[in-house]
Amino acid sequence: MNHLTKICLTVLSVLFVTAVTAHAADPENGRKLARQCSVCHGKLGVARGDPEVPNLAGQSSLYLEKSLKDYRSGERQDRRMTLLAKNLSDDEIKDLSAWFESIMITVTEPE
Amino acid sequence: MNHLTKICLTVLSVLFVTAVTAHAADPENGRKLARQCSVCHGKLGVARGDPEVPNLAGQSSLYLEKSLKDYRSGERQDRRMTLLAKNLSDDEIKDLSAWFESIMITVTEPE
Repeated sequence: MNHLTKICLTVLSVLFVTAVTAHAADPENGRKLARQCSVCHGKLGVARGDPEVPNLAGQSSLYLEKSLKDYRSGERQDRRMTLLAKNLSDDEIKDLSAWFESIMITVTEPE
Repeated sequence: MNHLTKICLTVLSVLFVTAVTAHAADPENGRKLARQCSVCHGKLGVARGDPEVPNLAGQSSLYLEKSLKDYRSGERQDRRMTLLAKNLSDDEIKDLSAWFESIMITVTEPE
């Protein structure tokens, strides 16, 4: 085996291990975790009347992950979310975001 | 007219003038202003594919006003929104927020 082949095999091994061990988002677990969100954000990510609370249904998971991580780090501030996000792991944030992304929304143009 | 009556009348006058001169949100003007948002957020507030960009359709105007003002003040940071929000007046923020709030959304529960 020549030197280049060895390098290629090493790189491929690293990529394989990374792919296998990286947490794949689990929206079904996100659905369970989201029970704690439903008091404000609604069962399906549509806010339940508090005008300070955004809808989450159908938002991209990337946007939601960033929001939760920003609340967790203090980059973004909200009296409720700052407290709640503190207790979330990276994997839980991924699952929650995948769940809310999976809810389809349709819009109606105002007249 | 006694002193108390005079005070009452003064307070009522101030309240009346404030109510008349306060800007009432104009969603129709917001719809026009929102043309600059549609490149990323879509014509009806549904993001056009960039996963960093949230949907705005049906969000509460209070939430949207806070978001825009936070971007304008620097309290919240985003490379695009920080630039765009700088040029918005309070009235424009109110109108834009009223427009996006007026778009009805419906959600479908994932199976």
